[in-house]
Amino acid sequence: MGTLEKGFIIARRDKKDFKNVVNKTFASIPSVIIIIDIMSFIYRRRVQFYETDAQGVVHHSNYFRYFEEARGEFLRERGFPYSKLRSLGMEVVLLNASCEYKKPLFYDDTFEIHMNLEELTRFTFTFSYKVFKGEELICIAKTKHCVVKKGKIVSIPKEIYEILR
Amino acid sequence: MGTLEKGFIIARRDKKDFKNVVNKTFASIPSVIIIIDIMSFIYRRRVQFYETDAQGVVHHSNYFRYFEEARGEFLRERGFPYSKLRSLGMEVVLLNASCEYKKPLFYDDTFEIHMNLEELTRFTFTFSYKVFKGEELICIAKTKHCVVKKGKIVSIPKEIYEILR
Amino acid sequence: MGTLEKGFIIARRDKKDFKNVVNKTFASIPSVIIIIDIMSFIYRRRVQFYETDAQGVVHHSNYFRYFEEARGEFLRERGFPYSKLRSLGMEVVLLNASCEYKKPLFYDDTFEIHMNLEELTRFTFTFSYKVFKGEELICIAKTKHCVVKKGKIVSIPKEIYEILR
Amino acid sequence: MGTLEKGFIIARRDKKDFKNVVNKTFASIPSVIIIIDIMSFIYRRRVQFYETDAQGVVHHSNYFRYFEEARGEFLRERGFPYSKLRSLGMEVVLLNASCEYKKPLFYDDTFEIHMNLEELTRFTFTFSYKVFKGEELICIAKTKHCVVKKGKIVSIPKEIYEILR
Repeated sequence: MGTLEKGFIIARRDKKDFKNVVNKTFASIPSVIIIIDIMSFIYRRRVQFYETDAQGVVHHSNYFRYFEEARGEFLRERGFPYSKLRSLGMEVVLLNASCEYKKPLFYDDTFEIHMNLEELTRFTFTFSYKVFKGEELICIAKTKHCVVKKGKIVSIPKEIYEILR
Repeated sequence: MGTLEKGFIIARRDKKDFKNVVNKTFASIPSVIIIIDIMSFIYRRRVQFYETDAQGVVHHSNYFRYFEEARGEFLRERGFPYSKLRSLGMEVVLLNASCEYKKPLFYDDTFEIHMNLEELTRFTFTFSYKVFKGEELICIAKTKHCVVKKGKIVSIPKEIYEILR
Repeated sequence: MGTLEKGFIIARRDKKDFKNVVNKTFASIPSVIIIIDIMSFIYRRRVQFYETDAQGVVHHSNYFRYFEEARGEFLRERGFPYSKLRSLGMEVVLLNASCEYKKPLFYDDTFEIHMNLEELTRFTFTFSYKVFKGEELICIAKTKHCVVKKGKIVSIPKEIYEILR
Repeated sequence: MGTLEKGFIIARRDKKDFKNVVNKTFASIPSVIIIIDIMSFIYRRRVQFYETDAQGVVHHSNYFRYFEEARGEFLRERGFPYSKLRSLGMEVVLLNASCEYKKPLFYDDTFEIHMNLEELTRFTFTFSYKVFKGEELICIAKTKHCVVKKGKIVSIPKEIYEILR
């Protein structure tokens, strides 16, 4: 997802993208290279047998469960677990979810979810996900969320906003 | 599940059992035959693709979900849906579950759950289940439940007791 | 999804859309109204307890399972069940899935999935879904698929193509 | 699961049982105490949000999935992952499963599964499970399995037998 702007290279540290950028760099020899360290949050996981289907691969619906796990781990690592938000009477609600499936995952495969914040507004936040099995890209996804209190959308609580920013 | 007591035959209307009883009857010629009509509640269902696993069969955990569906349908048909019980602040809680797996179910298979009340006390009720695919017995199971209100076990509400009796 | 072309109104029979078209019709008074009966395939379902989560609503991942059920029922009704395709050594593979969540579904809710073919090429087909609880729109979704034989994408088999067309 | 036989105390190292045994020991002062170190295999896990239901607790069906995870981890740790068995054309098939539910698990809870081999024959093996949340006993379960090759039950492969023994 590296983008070239005004002679600069802005890159994310995704394995593949980073390589691409570096390769492109040497090809095009830009004047300055700035690697902006928007580090992906990385969540590692192994495929369980009950997550497979009769095609022998992970059922597509389970990826959305993996992404939920990754979000949970992200918030916990940042010091504000989702259970804490819930204890304050708030819920994170999903507005939108999409996934582009490239390759399947099989039983016992280990994979990494590389998660990044895509967009942050006062009321919504969007994560993007890249699932890798080794170097192989499995799927690309996005989820958009808001925070709800007593059934009403509220502005994102400060603590969450600070974590996401 | 036919049992012979004092020259009587007490039979349930399960396909197989009933046949067995009738066969046994003609063999042993008891003085009196009483078919006690404890009709099984029958719930029909088709296997969904997402319920299969990489062995190509329904994952064992999903049978407990099928039994839950059957219980829900049973209560609804009897005029007291579980959602009504919940709206009164009560929950049905599972105490015990067991299943003996005989044959697998495959994608797109249709099957029947034959459900019977096994035991009813003031505080608990136990259902038994036989899953059939045509004449083939797939599995036999039991679940034991109680009713909880504000975190405490309460005696089974009259309305439910009447339905179960 | 009604579109106005050359004085004609072409409408789908989705509840809401139909209303919109009719309203628009009276506003704009076109010369002719033709309701082209691109009937949605409608799949009816009830929410099971095990499909809910601790927010008290259907977990978002389960909608993709509902859509799979709807596709299965659609193919079966058209006389070419998915299990038949599998017995010919073919699999339908998901390429893309997206869902926009508007309102939640609760335990015991009944809902309808209105399913339409959005796009059909030699190699791919795309379905769109609208989930309704009564008149209330719950979510809008799309899934894009291809057919795979021995690990390779093949052109959509004639029998499926005819059904979809 | 401590049992008193001929003046000996045979105990497993389960937290609670061990305490009970030690307490009982001082009370009854047996001549010899032998702690047979049948160490439980311990599998640690956190509850995911999608595993909860509208009662706010882990859905009962998911415990059987947790046990499957524990078995998978056990085999992997012993150097013979289940995927290896599958690559040899064999499958582990579940014959029996039962669970006694004592206390619920909630979202974000961490828990331990203490797993032991209960029985080993030429054709079958049975595991028992105790799920703990801290010191609190959540549930007790058993699963009985056999190994199947080309649809037929076969004697347990040597490699698995050695691991289990």
